Amino acid sequence: MELAAGIDFGGTSAKIGLVDRDGRILGRAQVTMDARESFEGIVDPVVRTLQDLIARTGGGGTVSTIGICTPGFIDKSDGNLIGGANNVPSLQHRSVQQYMERVFRVPAFADNDATSAAAGELAFGAGRRFSSFVLITVGTAIGGGLVFDRKIYRGWKGFAGEIGHICVSPNGLWCNCGSRGCFEQYASGSAILRVYGEKLRKRGTECPECQSPRDVVERARGGDGLARDTLEEAGGWIAQAFGTLLNVLNLEACLVGGGVSEAGDMLLEPVRRHLADHCWSQIGEGVEVLAAELRNDAGILGAAAQAFERLPPSGKAGRGSTGKVTDQE
Amino acid sequence: MELAAGIDFGGTSAKIGLVDRDGRILGRAQVTMDARESFEGIVDPVVRTLQDLIARTGGGGTVSTIGICTPGFIDKSDGNLIGGANNVPSLQHRSVQQYMERVFRVPAFADNDATSAAAGELAFGAGRRFSSFVLITVGTAIGGGLVFDRKIYRGWKGFAGEIGHICVSPNGLWCNCGSRGCFEQYASGSAILRVYGEKLRKRGTECPECQSPRDVVERARGGDGLARDTLEEAGGWIAQAFGTLLNVLNLEACLVGGGVSEAGDMLLEPVRRHLADHCWSQIGEGVEVLAAELRNDAGILGAAAQAFERLPPSGKAGRGSTGKVTDQE
Repeated sequence: MELAAGIDFGGTSAKIGLVDRDGRILGRAQVTMDARESFEGIVDPVVRTLQDLIARTGGGGTVSTIGICTPGFIDKSDGNLIGGANNVPSLQHRSVQQYMERVFRVPAFADNDATSAAAGELAFGAGRRFSSFVLITVGTAIGGGLVFDRKIYRGWKGFAGEIGHICVSPNGLWCNCGSRGCFEQYASGSAILRVYGEKLRKRGTECPECQSPRDVVERARGGDGLARDTLEEAGGWIAQAFGTLLNVLNLEACLVGGGVSEAGDMLLEPVRRHLADHCWSQIGEGVEVLAAELRNDAGILGAAAQAFERLPPSGKAGRGSTGKVTDQE
Repeated sequence: MELAAGIDFGGTSAKIGLVDRDGRILGRAQVTMDARESFEGIVDPVVRTLQDLIARTGGGGTVSTIGICTPGFIDKSDGNLIGGANNVPSLQHRSVQQYMERVFRVPAFADNDATSAAAGELAFGAGRRFSSFVLITVGTAIGGGLVFDRKIYRGWKGFAGEIGHICVSPNGLWCNCGSRGCFEQYASGSAILRVYGEKLRKRGTECPECQSPRDVVERARGGDGLARDTLEEAGGWIAQAFGTLLNVLNLEACLVGGGVSEAGDMLLEPVRRHLADHCWSQIGEGVEVLAAELRNDAGILGAAAQAFERLPPSGKAGRGSTGKVTDQE
């Protein structure tokens, strides 16, 4: 059986999975990362873990390709991470793709993590039944991926999908990207945590145990009105960004993924309610707003899906495999 | 020679051109329209004028197809103008496309006017050298068209490109579309005229002879500081909208057309200067901001280009013409 390795580099860990063409994860591992390490200091443990994983899952199949996703902008000609990934500085200006190709002697393909997540939802998740959609990943920041006509849209240099950097408020909050009023300053996990803290302070109180947006979601679930208001407001900003995207791109669906999407309808219901305020009725009619399905596996599965896409069809499908590679390890 | 008729319905007139596959306009006419007339009252004079034009230009070629553009949202299945065109109410809920097909017995294709203008720039104008671009048409309102990979992008129902309805200011000015803070409320010709008037009134004066945004452009050209400030501010809003589009779509170029684009660098220079404030440097680098080339003919040429696209290649190119139709009188 032909497998792809999917590797999802985050700020604190790398997730690894061995994935078949139907999106089943046959083996998985996670490597804790210290972002202050060197490039090799980060990537070599991932290589070793993947080698072990292949050896363990060994009999199950052959790894024919490796898909990689990281934050930031990746040069599609050589897999170089050229910027926009300040939380993994050592990976910048290097190519994990080429490094993996050299070590494993199979093709590899690297792309942005949110774009990969969209590819995962398209192939194996909530995007399967739509021809066009946007996915936003609401985590520490907001990432995005676009699918038109059942294909990932990458744009001129391959950097498309920076949905978190739609300007939602001119002269608004400064953003890490250097611009002002970016969407992610108002609706990301960090923003939700900040806004909830501001609401508490305004009332002379605080929440020392609130360390992550999930804590705010938990409090909202427990009935905390300010936490609910915070999610409601984030939902309003998401509706505004989706409205702009729908007016520009006339999409069929808007997907919300990332850790904060675990809030479920507490976040999605205000998005759905406000969406009509922000787009033409002819354009908004029939659009579905829904949660992404692949959760923590979106990166692994999307990276694997994108890697498979660049291989010839699997031999077992009888369409003539030319993608045979040396078995690893 | 195979020709397309291009018909561009505006709020006060319809422009008609006979266009060859190289984008040459071999004959042209204009019909004054009273938007309060019935559908037939508007379309029949256009039919007669086109018949006359074909008879006059007769020897020059055969009209094999008709391209039509109007404001609003057009159902691509039947050419029905389903909404968004309040300035030509009689054309709404009818199909000029089917009407023309019946009268002229050739295929016809109707699309939104700004989308058609983008198709015109792509085929014959400033878009020829770019693989991806956005065109905005800055007139009374702001229209838009998107080109990805040298093809017009239409979206799920064919309504994409509503660039004038990017939200640039939450809780901002109400727009005709029913939403708030739409880009066209800040940078359209109407907005330029309004803002200039507001600036004058704030200073206790006025400009009774300023009836159109062109008058503001003329004053700016003559050195009027407030008129220049008005264009500068409009340019700032355009830069913000372009920045959002670039972050989302990673385009190669941003084109500005429509009547107000005659302001030239007085409008484009501030757009270029501010653009870097509104997008990732990796995404903005190398992006060209320039004026559209086809001016008043963009609609005619774009409608013709889109109609040609739906015909088999011309016989004269030796690729086997199967598109022969009855000569029109």
